Amino acid sequence: MVLERVKQLAQQVSNTVSPPHPLDPLTTLEIDTAVSLLRAQHGKLYYNAVTLFEPPKAQMVQWLADPEHTQRPHRIADVVVISTDGKVFDGHVDLNEQKVISWEETPNVQPLITMEDLQAVEHVVREDPGVIEQCALIGIPREDMHKVYCDPWTIGYDERFGTGVRLQQALMYYRPHVDDSQYSFALDFCPIYDSNKQKIIHIDVPKVRRPVSKAPPNNYHVKSIEDQGGFRTDLKPINITQPEGVSFTMKGRTIEWQNWSVHIGFNYREGIVLNNISYFDKAENKVRPIFYRLSLAEMVVPYGNPEHPHQRKHAFDLGEYGGGYMTNSLALGCDCKGSIHYLDFDFVNRAGAANTIKNAVCIHEEDNGILFKHTDFRDDSVIVTRARKLIISHIFTAANYEYCVYWIFHQDGTIQLEIKLTGILNTYPMNPGEDTKGWGTEVYPGVNAHNHQHLFCLRIDPSVDGQKNTVFQVDAARGAGEPGSAENFYGNAFYAKKTKYTTPTEAKANYEGSSSRTWDISNENKLHPYSKKPSTYKLVSREVPDLLPKEGSLVWKRAGFARHAVHVTKYDDAQIHPAGRHVPQTSGEPSQGLPAWIASNPNQNIANEDIVLWHTFGLTHFPAPEDYPVMPAEPMTLLLRPRNFFLRNPALDVPPSYARTPSQVAAGKTGCSSCVDKASVLV
Amino acid sequence: MVLERVKQLAQQVSNTVSPPHPLDPLTTLEIDTAVSLLRAQHGKLYYNAVTLFEPPKAQMVQWLADPEHTQRPHRIADVVVISTDGKVFDGHVDLNEQKVISWEETPNVQPLITMEDLQAVEHVVREDPGVIEQCALIGIPREDMHKVYCDPWTIGYDERFGTGVRLQQALMYYRPHVDDSQYSFALDFCPIYDSNKQKIIHIDVPKVRRPVSKAPPNNYHVKSIEDQGGFRTDLKPINITQPEGVSFTMKGRTIEWQNWSVHIGFNYREGIVLNNISYFDKAENKVRPIFYRLSLAEMVVPYGNPEHPHQRKHAFDLGEYGGGYMTNSLALGCDCKGSIHYLDFDFVNRAGAANTIKNAVCIHEEDNGILFKHTDFRDDSVIVTRARKLIISHIFTAANYEYCVYWIFHQDGTIQLEIKLTGILNTYPMNPGEDTKGWGTEVYPGVNAHNHQHLFCLRIDPSVDGQKNTVFQVDAARGAGEPGSAENFYGNAFYAKKTKYTTPTEAKANYEGSSSRTWDISNENKLHPYSKKPSTYKLVSREVPDLLPKEGSLVWKRAGFARHAVHVTKYDDAQIHPAGRHVPQTSGEPSQGLPAWIASNPNQNIANEDIVLWHTFGLTHFPAPEDYPVMPAEPMTLLLRPRNFFLRNPALDVPPSYARTPSQVAAGKTGCSSCVDKASVLV
Repeated sequence: MVLERVKQLAQQVSNTVSPPHPLDPLTTLEIDTAVSLLRAQHGKLYYNAVTLFEPPKAQMVQWLADPEHTQRPHRIADVVVISTDGKVFDGHVDLNEQKVISWEETPNVQPLITMEDLQAVEHVVREDPGVIEQCALIGIPREDMHKVYCDPWTIGYDERFGTGVRLQQALMYYRPHVDDSQYSFALDFCPIYDSNKQKIIHIDVPKVRRPVSKAPPNNYHVKSIEDQGGFRTDLKPINITQPEGVSFTMKGRTIEWQNWSVHIGFNYREGIVLNNISYFDKAENKVRPIFYRLSLAEMVVPYGNPEHPHQRKHAFDLGEYGGGYMTNSLALGCDCKGSIHYLDFDFVNRAGAANTIKNAVCIHEEDNGILFKHTDFRDDSVIVTRARKLIISHIFTAANYEYCVYWIFHQDGTIQLEIKLTGILNTYPMNPGEDTKGWGTEVYPGVNAHNHQHLFCLRIDPSVDGQKNTVFQVDAARGAGEPGSAENFYGNAFYAKKTKYTTPTEAKANYEGSSSRTWDISNENKLHPYSKKPSTYKLVSREVPDLLPKEGSLVWKRAGFARHAVHVTKYDDAQIHPAGRHVPQTSGEPSQGLPAWIASNPNQNIANEDIVLWHTFGLTHFPAPEDYPVMPAEPMTLLLRPRNFFLRNPALDVPPSYARTPSQVAAGKTGCSSCVDKASVLV
Repeated sequence: MVLERVKQLAQQVSNTVSPPHPLDPLTTLEIDTAVSLLRAQHGKLYYNAVTLFEPPKAQMVQWLADPEHTQRPHRIADVVVISTDGKVFDGHVDLNEQKVISWEETPNVQPLITMEDLQAVEHVVREDPGVIEQCALIGIPREDMHKVYCDPWTIGYDERFGTGVRLQQALMYYRPHVDDSQYSFALDFCPIYDSNKQKIIHIDVPKVRRPVSKAPPNNYHVKSIEDQGGFRTDLKPINITQPEGVSFTMKGRTIEWQNWSVHIGFNYREGIVLNNISYFDKAENKVRPIFYRLSLAEMVVPYGNPEHPHQRKHAFDLGEYGGGYMTNSLALGCDCKGSIHYLDFDFVNRAGAANTIKNAVCIHEEDNGILFKHTDFRDDSVIVTRARKLIISHIFTAANYEYCVYWIFHQDGTIQLEIKLTGILNTYPMNPGEDTKGWGTEVYPGVNAHNHQHLFCLRIDPSVDGQKNTVFQVDAARGAGEPGSAENFYGNAFYAKKTKYTTPTEAKANYEGSSSRTWDISNENKLHPYSKKPSTYKLVSREVPDLLPKEGSLVWKRAGFARHAVHVTKYDDAQIHPAGRHVPQTSGEPSQGLPAWIASNPNQNIANEDIVLWHTFGLTHFPAPEDYPVMPAEPMTLLLRPRNFFLRNPALDVPPSYARTPSQVAAGKTGCSSCVDKASVLV
C-alpha cells in the first residue's frame, strides 16, 4: 500500500506542468514523496527535516547559464530523522529517480529541536514529581501546576550529560493568570528533559532559593493597558497604497525588480535563502551576477552570567531550532503595509506529513526618501529623485524572542540586510535586594534580565562578475610622513589600505571601528574602465562586537564562526552550516563547522577563487527596564555596496520627482516633474 | 528718517499679539528692527548675520518652569557685520529695549562666507586676465570664458595669506554646454579671490599642467538620460496619505507628538536647533526634560590628497558657510511624502534686508514598521504593534554636496539623527594615465575624486531629568577569571564596564567598535526604582572614524573638536561653536573653540553638573564611479536611547495592529484588531 502511494505521488510530480526551479524549496508533494519512499524502506520514523538538497554549485551554474541545453539538476530531499529507538539517520532521496540514494546512522549527534519538540515538554514538566516538589518549595502549590510553563530550550551542552542523550533544559515560568506574561515570574530551578524518554531526568536547583515573585504582573495585553488608562488616541492613520500595483514581477520564486533578479529560497534552518542575485546592467547590456547565495547561516546568543547553569543559555537559534521552522505566518497590515506578496513555506512534521506556514515570506516595496539630489547654488537648477526599495522579509519567534529579517534591495545596486530584535527578554528571578553582580539588570521587581549578545553569521557566497573572487580588508589609513615633511607637509594624507586575503589562515579578521574597516569582495579579472580598480561589492557593517565569551570557553568552542568578524574559505558544496550540521549538544571539542574546515586546509588558496565570506555581526545587549515587558524593536543593519562595479551611478534613469537645468531656469521654464506625488498635502 | 523707521518697526513688534517664544528665530520684523537700529548708529554696513542671541540658559530654565510669573527674556539680535572698509564688528541689539547693547570691532577674524559671497566670484574670475591666461594654457580660449565656472570656497587657511584679508579659493570648472555637469571638467589651477577688493590676488598653478578634459560630458539631466535610452518605466506609484490629518500639533514652533514636546529653532549656522526636548511620562504623570538643546554645531570635510593646494580643501560647512544659509527650499512630493508641515527661515542679506527661505524645515510622520511583536509558540497568541516616527528635517547644499539632516523622534523614547549625503563629489582633473597615488579615484576619464571624510560635531546639551548630568563611557567587557576558574568556569562572563568622566581632560574619548562603546548621559540623582541605575539617555553611534589628518596637522589644529569621538565640558552659554565663532581663515594656532575651552579649565568638575557632550561622527569616503556623476544618498545614523529612564517600555499604549491573548485563543475569539490597515492589499 505504501508503494502504491509512492507511485501515485510520483505520477502527480511528473504531471506537474512546470517543474520547480532547482533551488525552489520542496513542495508538499515532494515532501510526501520523500516520506513515502522512506516509510516504505524504513517504516516508522520521526522526521526532523525533509528539505531541499541544493544541487552542487558546478551543476547549477552550468544549468543557469543554459537551462535549455543542460540537464536539469535532480530534485533531491535532504532528510534527518530520529528512529523510534532514538537513533539519528541522515539520508538523501532522489525525487526524480524515486529512490533513497543515501541512508546512514549518524552516531552521537542531536538534530535540532523542532516546534513539536518545544511544545512537548510543558505537560511532562507539570506532572513530574520532582518539578512539583521544587515548585512547592518556592511557593507554587500542587493545585497551581497548570499555571507552570516552560520554554524547553535545547540543553546547549552540559558536560555532565554529553551528546548521546537528546536533552532539553526547561526554563521555568509561572503565570498567575493564563494571560499574564510569564517572564515576570521566572522560576529558579531548571529541569532537564530527555526527549526520547519524554521525561525529566534531572533538576538543577540553585544553592540560593528564590521564591516565586509576588510582584503584580507586568503585562502588555490589551486589557492591562486599558486598565492602566487606555491606549493613546492621537495617532491618525497613515495609508500606503499602490493604485497601479507593484513594480515587481514573480516568475515562480524568481523576482524581478528594478534590474534586479533574485531567486527566493527558504529552508527550515536559514529561513530565506537568496540565490542567483544578478543585475541587468544597461551600460553593459547584460545580466551581471553578483551573489550566488546569501543567507543567515547561523547565530548564537551567549548570556553573560557565569553562574551555573546560565552558561547553558547560548542559543544557536538557526542551527538548534531553525529560523524557518520558527517563522511566523504574517498577516496583512500587521507586519507590513502597502501591496504585499507572500510566499508560503512547506515543511515536514514529526509524523512525516507536509505542513505549511502560510505567508511565511513577505515581499513588498517601500518609498525610501531621497535617492539623489543636487541643487546648483547659482540658479537653483536642481534634480531630485526619490528612492524605492524592495524588501523580502520573514519573522521568527525563538521562544521569548522575535527576529525580524529584512533583505532589502536598493535601486543604486546596494543590498542591505536589516534585522530588528523584538519580543521578550530572557529572565531569571532575583530575591529582593539581591545583587545582580553586573551580570544583568533588574528590569522589574524580582526580574533579572541577563546581559547577552546576538551574533549572526551571514554567509556570503559571492559571484561578483563570475565565481572567481578575492576578499580584501580595507582600512582608512594615514599617509606616510609627519606634518612638515615633504611628502605630507600639511599632514592630511590618507588612503584606503588594502590587505589581500590569500589563505583562510590570513582571512580571520576582527572588526576595527576607528579605521572604518570594510571588506571588498572583488573580481580581480575585471577592472573598471575608469578607475582601473577591480569590480567589487563592499561589505559595510558597523555593528560588529567581539565575541565576549573568552577564548577556550564553551561558547568560543561551539560557536567557532563568532571568533572573528570575517572568515573566508574556498567554496565547498558541503559547507553551509558554520557551527556544524547537527548543532545541539556539540561540545566544541573539536569545534565543528568553520574552524574544522579551515583547520583541514589552512593554507588553501582563496585569492581569485570560488570563495565564501562568513561575516559575524550583531550586538551586545545590556537590558534596561525600557526593554520590558516587551521590547521595542532594536534595528541593526549592514550593506553590500557596489564599488567599481557599475560604470556610474546605476540609478540615473529612475524618473526624477523634479528636475530643471540651468538653461530651463534661464528660459523661465518649469522643467521636468515626472513623478511628483499628487497624494501628498500641505498642512 | 531712519529713526522714524525704527519707531515704526518697534510699534509693529509691540503690536504683535503673541510675542515669539524666546527661542524662536528672529522674525523678518525683528531683523528689520535690528538693522534699522544699527544703520541709525553706524550707517552702511555689510551684514553677515543677524540671528537670535539665545537667552542665557539660567534665565530660560527659570522662564520655562513658570512663564506666567517670570520675566520674559528679552529678544536680542546677535549681529556680525563687515564695514565698508572691511572691518569685522560683532554686536548685540536688544529688540525689547530698542538699542544696540554691544558693538565691538573684532580684529583678525573672518566671518563666514554667505551665499551672496559665493555668488559674487564667478563673474570676477571670468574677467580676470590671469585666469583668462591660465584658461588659455589648458585649452579654453578667451571667447569661451562664459563657460568657465567656479565654486568659490573660503580659503580655509593658507599660511601665505593669513587671516587678515578676506579670501576665497575659486575651485575652477568648465561647462562645454551650460547644462553640462561642470564637475567632469575641473580645471587645474586655483585663483585666490579677495572678497573685500573683489578681485583675484593670486593664482595657484600646479607644476604638472592638466589640459581641460576632452571626454564627453557625464550628465544626469533629463535630456541626457533620454538620449541614452530613456527613463525606466516599470516603477508604479506609491501613495502615502493621511486622510484624517497628521498626529502632531504645533503651538508656535513647539511641536507636540506622541508625548514628545520639542521647540524647533533654526539659525544660519547650525540649521535646525531643537530645544526643551521633553516627554510626558504617563507613569510619573509629568513632563520630564531630556535635552535642553540639540544641534549639529560644526563639521569638517578634510580631503586626503597631500599635494598643494588640496590641503586647503577641508570645509567647515557649518562654521564657514552656514547650514542654515545654504538650506534648500523644499517642495512637496519631491523631498517628502504624505502630509507635510513646513517652517520658513528668515535671514538677513548683505544689504541688511530680511529675506526668507520658504519651506526650509520639513515636518512629517512616517510609518516605521514593527514597533514590537511577540508570539507565544504554544498557541499563537500574539501582539503586534506598528511604529510611527516624526521627522524634522532640512537639506543644505554646500556647493557640490548635499547634506540631508533628519531629526527623528520615535514612540519608544528614542531620538535618532540621520544624515544622508548626496550631491556631487568634489573633483580635480587628471591627465590620461596619471597615477592617483591612492589619494583619489578616477571616477570618470580625467576626473579624480579625492578621498575625504565627513565629520559632524553633534552638540548635546542634556537635561536628563534636570540640568545636573554625568557622562559615563560604557564598554562591553569580559568578566575576570579564565575558563576553568571558579569565578568564570565556563568563560562566559561579561558586563558593561562604566568609566565616569569627572573632568574635561578625562572626557576625551575615541571610539571603540569591538567593545561596542557607547556613552551614558545620566542623572545620578535619580535612580530607576527597579534597576537602581541612574536615569539615562545613551548615545549609540557606530559611524565614528578617527580624524585621519595627523596630530599637529592643519586640520587637526583647526578642527579640534574632531580629535576625539567625545568631549565633555561644563556648560557655558558662550560655548556653542566648537571650532570658534568665526571659522574661516583660522590657523588653529592656538586652536579655537573646544580645545581652548578645555585648556582654560582642564580639571573643572563635569560630574553631576550642567554639561555638554560634543560627539564627532561621520564617515570616510573613498570615491567610486558609482558615486558619479551624482551620488546616491549614503545614510549614516546615531541614536539617543532611554535606558533606566522610563519605568518600562513607554510605547505599550500604542494601539496594536493585532493582539490576541491565550484565553482568547482558547475561547476561539479573534482578539483585538484596532488599527489593521484597510488600505493594504494582497497581490
